[in-house]
Amino acid sequence: METNNLSIFNELESEVRSYCRSFPAIFNKAKGYKLWDVEGNEYIDFFSGAGALNYGHNDPKMKAKLVDYILNDGIAHSLDKATAAKAEFLEKFNNVILKPRNMEYKVMFPGPTGTNTVESALKLARKVTGRTDVISFTNGFHGMTIGSLSVTGNSFKRKGAGIPLQHVVTMPYDSFVNDELDTLEYLERFLEDNGSGVEIPAAMILETVQGEGGINAARFEWLQKVESICRRFGILLIVDDVQAGVGRTGTFFSFEKAGITPDIICLSKSIGGYGLPLALTLINPKYDIWEPGEHNGTFRGNNLAFVTATEALTYWETDSFEKSIQEKSDKITEFLVGLTVKYPQIKGTVRGRGFMQGIATEVDGLASDIAKAAFERGLIMETAGPEDEVFKLFPALTIDNEGLEKGFAIIEESIKSLVNEKEPVSS
Amino acid sequence: METNNLSIFNELESEVRSYCRSFPAIFNKAKGYKLWDVEGNEYIDFFSGAGALNYGHNDPKMKAKLVDYILNDGIAHSLDKATAAKAEFLEKFNNVILKPRNMEYKVMFPGPTGTNTVESALKLARKVTGRTDVISFTNGFHGMTIGSLSVTGNSFKRKGAGIPLQHVVTMPYDSFVNDELDTLEYLERFLEDNGSGVEIPAAMILETVQGEGGINAARFEWLQKVESICRRFGILLIVDDVQAGVGRTGTFFSFEKAGITPDIICLSKSIGGYGLPLALTLINPKYDIWEPGEHNGTFRGNNLAFVTATEALTYWETDSFEKSIQEKSDKITEFLVGLTVKYPQIKGTVRGRGFMQGIATEVDGLASDIAKAAFERGLIMETAGPEDEVFKLFPALTIDNEGLEKGFAIIEESIKSLVNEKEPVSS
Amino acid sequence: METNNLSIFNELESEVRSYCRSFPAIFNKAKGYKLWDVEGNEYIDFFSGAGALNYGHNDPKMKAKLVDYILNDGIAHSLDKATAAKAEFLEKFNNVILKPRNMEYKVMFPGPTGTNTVESALKLARKVTGRTDVISFTNGFHGMTIGSLSVTGNSFKRKGAGIPLQHVVTMPYDSFVNDELDTLEYLERFLEDNGSGVEIPAAMILETVQGEGGINAARFEWLQKVESICRRFGILLIVDDVQAGVGRTGTFFSFEKAGITPDIICLSKSIGGYGLPLALTLINPKYDIWEPGEHNGTFRGNNLAFVTATEALTYWETDSFEKSIQEKSDKITEFLVGLTVKYPQIKGTVRGRGFMQGIATEVDGLASDIAKAAFERGLIMETAGPEDEVFKLFPALTIDNEGLEKGFAIIEESIKSLVNEKEPVSS
Amino acid sequence: METNNLSIFNELESEVRSYCRSFPAIFNKAKGYKLWDVEGNEYIDFFSGAGALNYGHNDPKMKAKLVDYILNDGIAHSLDKATAAKAEFLEKFNNVILKPRNMEYKVMFPGPTGTNTVESALKLARKVTGRTDVISFTNGFHGMTIGSLSVTGNSFKRKGAGIPLQHVVTMPYDSFVNDELDTLEYLERFLEDNGSGVEIPAAMILETVQGEGGINAARFEWLQKVESICRRFGILLIVDDVQAGVGRTGTFFSFEKAGITPDIICLSKSIGGYGLPLALTLINPKYDIWEPGEHNGTFRGNNLAFVTATEALTYWETDSFEKSIQEKSDKITEFLVGLTVKYPQIKGTVRGRGFMQGIATEVDGLASDIAKAAFERGLIMETAGPEDEVFKLFPALTIDNEGLEKGFAIIEESIKSLVNEKEPVSS
Repeated sequence: METNNLSIFNELESEVRSYCRSFPAIFNKAKGYKLWDVEGNEYIDFFSGAGALNYGHNDPKMKAKLVDYILNDGIAHSLDKATAAKAEFLEKFNNVILKPRNMEYKVMFPGPTGTNTVESALKLARKVTGRTDVISFTNGFHGMTIGSLSVTGNSFKRKGAGIPLQHVVTMPYDSFVNDELDTLEYLERFLEDNGSGVEIPAAMILETVQGEGGINAARFEWLQKVESICRRFGILLIVDDVQAGVGRTGTFFSFEKAGITPDIICLSKSIGGYGLPLALTLINPKYDIWEPGEHNGTFRGNNLAFVTATEALTYWETDSFEKSIQEKSDKITEFLVGLTVKYPQIKGTVRGRGFMQGIATEVDGLASDIAKAAFERGLIMETAGPEDEVFKLFPALTIDNEGLEKGFAIIEESIKSLVNEKEPVSS
Repeated sequence: METNNLSIFNELESEVRSYCRSFPAIFNKAKGYKLWDVEGNEYIDFFSGAGALNYGHNDPKMKAKLVDYILNDGIAHSLDKATAAKAEFLEKFNNVILKPRNMEYKVMFPGPTGTNTVESALKLARKVTGRTDVISFTNGFHGMTIGSLSVTGNSFKRKGAGIPLQHVVTMPYDSFVNDELDTLEYLERFLEDNGSGVEIPAAMILETVQGEGGINAARFEWLQKVESICRRFGILLIVDDVQAGVGRTGTFFSFEKAGITPDIICLSKSIGGYGLPLALTLINPKYDIWEPGEHNGTFRGNNLAFVTATEALTYWETDSFEKSIQEKSDKITEFLVGLTVKYPQIKGTVRGRGFMQGIATEVDGLASDIAKAAFERGLIMETAGPEDEVFKLFPALTIDNEGLEKGFAIIEESIKSLVNEKEPVSS
Repeated sequence: METNNLSIFNELESEVRSYCRSFPAIFNKAKGYKLWDVEGNEYIDFFSGAGALNYGHNDPKMKAKLVDYILNDGIAHSLDKATAAKAEFLEKFNNVILKPRNMEYKVMFPGPTGTNTVESALKLARKVTGRTDVISFTNGFHGMTIGSLSVTGNSFKRKGAGIPLQHVVTMPYDSFVNDELDTLEYLERFLEDNGSGVEIPAAMILETVQGEGGINAARFEWLQKVESICRRFGILLIVDDVQAGVGRTGTFFSFEKAGITPDIICLSKSIGGYGLPLALTLINPKYDIWEPGEHNGTFRGNNLAFVTATEALTYWETDSFEKSIQEKSDKITEFLVGLTVKYPQIKGTVRGRGFMQGIATEVDGLASDIAKAAFERGLIMETAGPEDEVFKLFPALTIDNEGLEKGFAIIEESIKSLVNEKEPVSS
Repeated sequence: METNNLSIFNELESEVRSYCRSFPAIFNKAKGYKLWDVEGNEYIDFFSGAGALNYGHNDPKMKAKLVDYILNDGIAHSLDKATAAKAEFLEKFNNVILKPRNMEYKVMFPGPTGTNTVESALKLARKVTGRTDVISFTNGFHGMTIGSLSVTGNSFKRKGAGIPLQHVVTMPYDSFVNDELDTLEYLERFLEDNGSGVEIPAAMILETVQGEGGINAARFEWLQKVESICRRFGILLIVDDVQAGVGRTGTFFSFEKAGITPDIICLSKSIGGYGLPLALTLINPKYDIWEPGEHNGTFRGNNLAFVTATEALTYWETDSFEKSIQEKSDKITEFLVGLTVKYPQIKGTVRGRGFMQGIATEVDGLASDIAKAAFERGLIMETAGPEDEVFKLFPALTIDNEGLEKGFAIIEESIKSLVNEKEPVSS
């Protein structure tokens, strides 16, 4: 295979394939924030596996540990039997992440994907409360299996279910109607009023920054008020930190600065460190009332991922990593704000937090065009939002300034190349 | 970590953990059909990751390819972008598996777990037909997310959902009522009669041999009749070959000898070869009507698994592997039948097919006791069935005669040690 | 209005109207088993308001009481306030019906229609057991509101819901597959097996003779076995006696001869005596755990119906009415069996019990043709069954021999007129 | 029966009975706005059968027609066969109600209760649009069968279902959050945003004044905006006029002054005139796509109700009835406003419109106490709202000034007797 000839995919792979359409090349190597295709072309990765590669590709220390483990015939697949690799991960996760944050949680391994941790969280919240309904929020994204999909807002994805999605009430996320309106006043009235038709739910589930939903960041006060409503009505608070967690917004957990304490936390994507499938469900110990095996799965024990996940936690042993994320986040903000000022034609608004920022543009189709133009110039970047109206910057947290600036340059060039052609549409 | 001290798991891991309770040791190495714990104790593996390790642990050829790939900075995580590793897998899967069997299918990568392929299959069948209901079968097991759980029979698992599981009608699997009754006569009447309350469903989903459900093997005639009913009423036939596929019953697909042609096939577990998370959904091309991205997931592109999966297919390039499975299957049957004759006290009946056989015992609790006694003697073996009434033999397909015989010896000793103590209960 | 001109109905009434299509005349008077249209044509009524007119039209004693009550300004509408008319009904119902049969039940007035008593029964069974599912039977008919419709088998009616109908499992009614197969063996296996996918339901609901479903009469042994299965698993038994009750099968309750004791009984149709809307839900006192007002409705207190219902119970004060029903039932059977023998071309089988009998014909469309031919000759008679394959005789229980024989004659003539034209279709 | 001895009800009637607990007397006669119990005590009726007796009890003209019809052996029960009584009703309804208002609707007789017309409306809207969801509003009340209950807000009633109520999204009714917030801005955002998790529904269903929900009157502008949102998104607008219709708010249909044109209108309660069970579903002709018999029921043809309903329409032949309602409505408003001023201790707010007004009191339990005290003084009056916080005045529309003033006097006395005892609670 020496050319970017996609015919084998066109012939054999299902129509459902998607990113290979936006990024039509055959990739074979990767390192840090860079990717190469089979023709040797280099790409800067501002997508990072949709948040699964926060540490970049093929981190050298993780790689060394991984190869070592495999060469030593370390057990690869173990279901949920106890293994040495798992024990090490648990211990380090407790010491590096939970304890220093005064967090006490039981760790569940629910199957190695984001949707699986969400499904386990919903099950457990229903079991704990004996209630069936869950409150989710507009433009939330939680996964594609029926349980997770039912709390996901996107109508295209929902229709894919082929059945009505139920036991869920969608409430307005922060700033859903406009920036002034307090959407939680509305939510709270529904819970207070016995005639509202909305039952007290088992749980509320939310992302603190909505990735797929359009890089919407909830204000900390809003998150705090959600937490207090949950406490008032005895509702479990589930934070789905699959995408916003593991440093993406600047802290290990995305909700640290909001000062809230979720009852259940969903982690996946970058928790495995190297891009290997892994997921955790963190549970307030008083709610850990599972029966043994009540939720299970074949790939709960992906030991290769335990090995890299353990090594990845080293990044969090001191606060220097966090600091560097925050410094670079500021650069990203500065760059994006600069773009909106410099190119008013894109009618852009900066959204997001940390390494999870983007620009929402009112010009129809422009975000996708920018992403496309950027790819042609060697940058991989995705769009988000119900109308794909946001282009989003998701570099690896480990990217250096040079990488960032190269990426910025490509984005700016891409915009420039478009704003001259494209007339803004008045909204 | 030098002792089998499970305290870290007891402290930090959720109550949901299960196999670490049945097999209380900390495993760290594995090779072929053997496992070792941190104290250096050796175990024979008659469980094989619940069917995810059909090629045994850490197969040397796969291991070499895997290490090579990692050392070369092969791309590890790629979402569903095109990669060289994926292209190679697709090509080899087509050449070694599909073409020689005259099978034409589109390949979907739905997320790397069994439940994910099942969820994708159900979605697609509903989309294709515009219908909502699905027929599943008694004692079927298809996964733990809400869509898959709804077609799973086990009441303990179903209750875990915390919500009513719907859009599903359960019909009796082969021999469900008794061996004489043709369960499909019932099923067909329900579909024929406009007043039956059962709608023509989008699909029927089934395993040809039910693993979790108690090692129930459907007769080939029964499978053929299911297929013909599906054709008669325009119902899609989904075969969930997650556990029974990839050689477990003697052929690559479990339904080959039945001569049926499913519309959708679910594969996972051993498809990755090395125990790494991977799943495929095979789709009759005429039903591949997905919109791009209509079902997606972060870990669709687990390239390490593509590498080992590709190497694993080498086993199927000639028919010698199939032959060896069948020879050893006969030994397993012979051994199990022998046990039921020699130890009438266990009131046992042999069930299953190929490397997926077991004994159902009428003596309450005996199957679990045998598994426990076997573990104490260094054999890992699981129970199955709605009352855990079956102990099942799931060795690696690559096991040699010595390994098989060692395992047999431990099982027989375990039984001997129990039948003297335990009085059979008249059912 | 002096001609049978239906234009006002065609113009103003919804397309949903149906019987006015089968019986295109404008009726204005009625007495006993006779009806007259505005042109003065006389019809014999073998339909009896689908079982709501078991005492015939405008019974003179009921009429006298009714007029008296109205002239005296008796309260007509009372919600569920206590009224004198209701007290009299309760007392007489207890003395004439319940006590002599050693039946102890609480009486609920759930709204004045059949579907309302069924909805209340389902709610209560779910409340009592805390379970959600209900078992219904193939070809059962229980009403058209969403709760009742969900336990109704007919696919045309079910589709009308516009939403999936859930929380229900349909099991095969007696003789559903064929006359030999014990459908309850099948049902019982589903309940016994923890892996069957069928939960222990809140209730089973059934008609002892299915009217709309095709005049299928369950054998008494079958009913007894249903009852014993319900007892074994702690399932409530609901008998929907809306159509088969109030004497239609020969006894006041249709299940008396089977010797079973339902936990909840649904009554409507003829319970009002004069064809006025009324319904009762009879509840085993230990299950009467409703909260006040938990189920309600505006027309629970239709006092005009209480007045006629009370008078109607007089028929049951001695056993002479029951005897006369049974004698005439035998005549109906004899007549119908005679028809099947005399006209083998209709390929007919006699079905049913008491005043709820009919002939199922294998000749496609013949039952409807016979009903049509009969109407042209002055007899009103309906068809039933999932393919309208049964013509059914539903005369008033008070009909005299002359009336019966006139009706018989018309039916035979109608058949004669058709069998010469129509070739039987081999099934 | 000569005393108000309720023992027969306590013994035989289900615990579900409710109004006989609030109004512990045995009623036997009624005339206009008065009721008498068996002891001869007289009561003023400010309840009017929850809106089923808008013309008062036993209206002399209706009574005469009714008795005449019965004495002449008019057909009482006719299913949906054509009858002379039904033809007359249809014609007069068209001439007196529809035509003068330029309304063109097909008339469906869905079974004789409010819940039945609502169930038929929901079915039809789903059939017309092919969608499953329906939007209902907070504190709406539409009935007690599963379909209607699913669009009803009250949590106590909803729990009675025993199953989750689905395919419904509850949106905030006018003034739900507070008087300033435009609740439709929320609703519209949910419909506009593809990621909101709320599908475009088949229909919106609402009452223009919510009776059971607490006498909440929507502003006309709000109703107009609902209509325009429905038009914008192709959603059917269903007005449930079961309680607010037939003059209760001052015009025949409650929405006339708002100037909106519902696609489907539900009528029951007072449409029968005399308190006899009857219901209509009015359908925009272009949506009348029912198949014959797709929704049916035994008591669609309650001819006694057709006779009184036809006579009742005479009230609407001129505009004098409407005028008199409006004059008396003003008196009711004046009286209630006066109360809130004169008795600030009750912390009351006047709510409602026309003959459907009441006072919401912030003093916990006071509304019920006032209703109780009024009953002791000979007035029948009910409470409403999710916390029973409203006492409501529902006199017959035909009441004279003397009757109104007597009622007012009793209410004021009742309040006086309580405000001295009861300390207001600060909310």
